[in-house]
Amino acid sequence: MNYRAEINVMPLKALLDPQGKAVAKSLKNLEISQIKDVRIGKHITMHLKAENEQEAKEKVETVCKKLLANPVMEYYEFSIYSE
Amino acid sequence: MNYRAEINVMPLKALLDPQGKAVAKSLKNLEISQIKDVRIGKHITMHLKAENEQEAKEKVETVCKKLLANPVMEYYEFSIYSE
Repeated sequence: MNYRAEINVMPLKALLDPQGKAVAKSLKNLEISQIKDVRIGKHITMHLKAENEQEAKEKVETVCKKLLANPVMEYYEFSIYSE
Repeated sequence: MNYRAEINVMPLKALLDPQGKAVAKSLKNLEISQIKDVRIGKHITMHLKAENEQEAKEKVETVCKKLLANPVMEYYEFSIYSE
């Protein structure tokens, strides 16, 4: 079966996010108001083959842990869609 | 009303994505197989105030165009959730 994974890797909520802060500040300079709590992370899409959805989830979980997210600074969340 | 926007800014499908290619290659080195078409972009979350959902959408659209996405290399998509 073919699956598509949509993964978000975001800075931990407890940590400062300098990139997000920079965007929030730029918004003020652009005179766009009433936006706050801007946080910026990574969005990853990938296509994978697996026997079933459970196996696909485990595979993506492994990839996130081993390669995509640094657990000291980031958390991840993902959704799997069959194609 | 308070809204939360979840924005993805991704490299255009027609363009190479060197960061994604690097991850795909690393997966091979980690002996995780059957994953392909890895693409990496940005995920942005923000909280905003607006009169209604339509206004919130327009605001986020403006922010994407003016600040977050470079239309020569990237496309964006977003969802708005009321909070």
